[in-house]
Amino acid sequence: MNYYEQHHDSYLEGLKTFLRIPSISTLSEHKPDIQRAADFVRRELEKAGLEQAQLIEGAGNPLVYAEWLGAPGKPTVLFYGHYDVQPPDPLDEWKSPPFEPDIRDNNIYARGSADDKGQTYILIKAVEGLLKQHGRLPINVKFLIEGEEEVGGEHIEAYVASKPARLKADAAVICDTEMFAPELPTICVGLRGIIYGELVVEGANHDLHSGVYGGAAPNPLMAIAEILTALKDREGHIKIPGFYDRVVPPSAKERAAWARLPFDEREYRENEVGVKELVGEPEIPLFERLWARPTLEVHGIRGGFIGEGAKTVIPARGVAKLSMRLVADQNPDEAVAQLQKAVAAACPKGVTAVYKTIHNAPPSLVNPDNRFIHAAAEAMKQVFGKETVYIRSGGSIPIVAAFDKYLGIPSVMMGFGLPDDNLHAPNEKLHLPNFFRGIEAVARYIEILGA
Amino acid sequence: MNYYEQHHDSYLEGLKTFLRIPSISTLSEHKPDIQRAADFVRRELEKAGLEQAQLIEGAGNPLVYAEWLGAPGKPTVLFYGHYDVQPPDPLDEWKSPPFEPDIRDNNIYARGSADDKGQTYILIKAVEGLLKQHGRLPINVKFLIEGEEEVGGEHIEAYVASKPARLKADAAVICDTEMFAPELPTICVGLRGIIYGELVVEGANHDLHSGVYGGAAPNPLMAIAEILTALKDREGHIKIPGFYDRVVPPSAKERAAWARLPFDEREYRENEVGVKELVGEPEIPLFERLWARPTLEVHGIRGGFIGEGAKTVIPARGVAKLSMRLVADQNPDEAVAQLQKAVAAACPKGVTAVYKTIHNAPPSLVNPDNRFIHAAAEAMKQVFGKETVYIRSGGSIPIVAAFDKYLGIPSVMMGFGLPDDNLHAPNEKLHLPNFFRGIEAVARYIEILGA
Repeated sequence: MNYYEQHHDSYLEGLKTFLRIPSISTLSEHKPDIQRAADFVRRELEKAGLEQAQLIEGAGNPLVYAEWLGAPGKPTVLFYGHYDVQPPDPLDEWKSPPFEPDIRDNNIYARGSADDKGQTYILIKAVEGLLKQHGRLPINVKFLIEGEEEVGGEHIEAYVASKPARLKADAAVICDTEMFAPELPTICVGLRGIIYGELVVEGANHDLHSGVYGGAAPNPLMAIAEILTALKDREGHIKIPGFYDRVVPPSAKERAAWARLPFDEREYRENEVGVKELVGEPEIPLFERLWARPTLEVHGIRGGFIGEGAKTVIPARGVAKLSMRLVADQNPDEAVAQLQKAVAAACPKGVTAVYKTIHNAPPSLVNPDNRFIHAAAEAMKQVFGKETVYIRSGGSIPIVAAFDKYLGIPSVMMGFGLPDDNLHAPNEKLHLPNFFRGIEAVARYIEILGA
Repeated sequence: MNYYEQHHDSYLEGLKTFLRIPSISTLSEHKPDIQRAADFVRRELEKAGLEQAQLIEGAGNPLVYAEWLGAPGKPTVLFYGHYDVQPPDPLDEWKSPPFEPDIRDNNIYARGSADDKGQTYILIKAVEGLLKQHGRLPINVKFLIEGEEEVGGEHIEAYVASKPARLKADAAVICDTEMFAPELPTICVGLRGIIYGELVVEGANHDLHSGVYGGAAPNPLMAIAEILTALKDREGHIKIPGFYDRVVPPSAKERAAWARLPFDEREYRENEVGVKELVGEPEIPLFERLWARPTLEVHGIRGGFIGEGAKTVIPARGVAKLSMRLVADQNPDEAVAQLQKAVAAACPKGVTAVYKTIHNAPPSLVNPDNRFIHAAAEAMKQVFGKETVYIRSGGSIPIVAAFDKYLGIPSVMMGFGLPDDNLHAPNEKLHLPNFFRGIEAVARYIEILGA
């Protein structure tokens, strides 16, 4: 048993403690939990033997910083993770409570287990292991762990923009993505961006009786339906003028690599997604739809009556939560402007409709040809025993674009989640073998870089 | 001061007591309040001097019955009202709490003030006044007050169907409608029917991350938007095949009478409805759209995330509360079948969509040429000092069709609400002069019928 194998029990106990904190950044009533999670991360970094472990307080949730800079002349890596999590609802679909970690079939179930507390913890424990064994690291490291990733991460972006000297590094390592398949080491080289906001539709100045006024009064919920269907057709094509103009298709080489990935579409459809039929632009292959095409999704519609039984109301107001995923070279500001124009054009008679931004993040596409990504591929190959594959992700990690823009450094996205980890959904989990091997792979990565 | 004028204070106190009971039939946690409201009505009927005052318990909320049959050879009138109310939400839009009656500007504000506790109380106090003054009534009366009008009134319908002998009468009087304009005595001769239910759309078998799966996973909320827009176009035309086939247009005489009603469309649009523009089938005049054309409305959409901030979820399931108002000679069963077929035809790829009925009621159209309606018109004219007008209502009062079908009697809809009473909406009110004069008008009606 190597050093890491000897510490599995304590890693698991520490992770459970972290997962028990309901640090939901979307809900303001969880502010104290955000603080507890930040404090937990700071203490863990300190215990690991890192220096300068501290909370960076500012406009939003605290950032957690720590460093070890005892290897002059060696590269510096900036490790990134986040301690905040998505809301757990719908609660009644969880098999065990979301903030009481439960181990079943070699998986740990809890909100944040994969996204991203488990993976953040991997980074900390990898560095801790090297420091405890050797009293030093073969490279320099900085940690910057945030608490607002699930709400757009604006404050970390402002901080990164304002402190390029303090955060100076040669590369960033982001541990917040997944492996393409179990035990298949994977590096992610592309992320979609996102614009997320609310479509606010207002009709009459008060709720109305649908018997007395139905036939004359505008219905904001129906107007939302009309606007949504004007923005996207039944086949998944977005009907916003100019919206696809900047979309860069994947290269022939990348498409060919994707086609070689080990993949069973039926298994994916039936067991991972759980649908009878996959949808989306029929002329575009699946991975390209997921990784290299923009989307428009509605996440919830507020307004009117959704309780038990019947209420015959025409609501005065309806609000739809909307997002659009963006791909290179789209940019959020332009996409918002195009969406707002299209909403105005699609707005039916009798109501007003306005799209209001909640948060945005640009897409990013990393050139994999650098020593930091090569070392990551090699480290993962050594620990997992298989050739590392390169994929993209359909999700959005806003910090990648910020590291590129403000620090001028590439991001290495080595992640240890799995496709069926139920991110943002009930019964989120992390596969424990990935958790333990992830710690070893990150440690191996540091060793390779420092060799 | 006549007898009724002398009792204004006690009428108001009694009404306030009635309005303080939150007898919301849609919400099962209010069952105890339903019982309290039924008991209140029973005691009031007994105090009024009626006989056999009793609760009729059955499958649903109790019916309240009472009678006075001491005028052999004279007509028998069956008085109907309801003691249940709509939910008060959205609560934050009420200027005073919905179950703490508040008098402002000669109006009493509370949920149920107009619909229908205030009007039910009018019936009771009218009869009480005659009995207290004369020890008898000039006609026979029966009261049947229900507690499920706002949830479809199925139990009263079953009871009426099963007890035609007990409820035998020459006409029903329903006090649950409104005057066309302040101090303009009005009789309602037509009601729309309704089908109300839930459109249940299911996609994946669990909630999904919109980044990871957006572009391949079906979105049930988007599917609801697609189905709704397939069912009704932007101009308000319902696109369900065969749906308009049975619609009987109003007669030329009725249309001409409607055109003579005192009406300021701008005032209606700006102050009553509170919109910049009225909508609905552009080729159909306003009153016909409201009273003689069917509708399709969505009342609320459940599913996904509607909290504060952002959650990037593609929900597994969405549910839309839908209703369609029906007009003569449409029938609910046929309309449901047509709607279900249209929903199936409009259902997009990747999801299932099913419409499930919550409750139905047929439309009704009353021939105004009978002594019971003539007497009502005369009584209201005497009390209010103006010629009575005949209108229809866009709302639905399911019991009217049941009285016709099972008892073979016409319904007289004399109501004392006003168009701006905010039925089913925040700040529901009843105009107090209408409340007091309504009691006198119903008493006068009984005297005219008994003369």
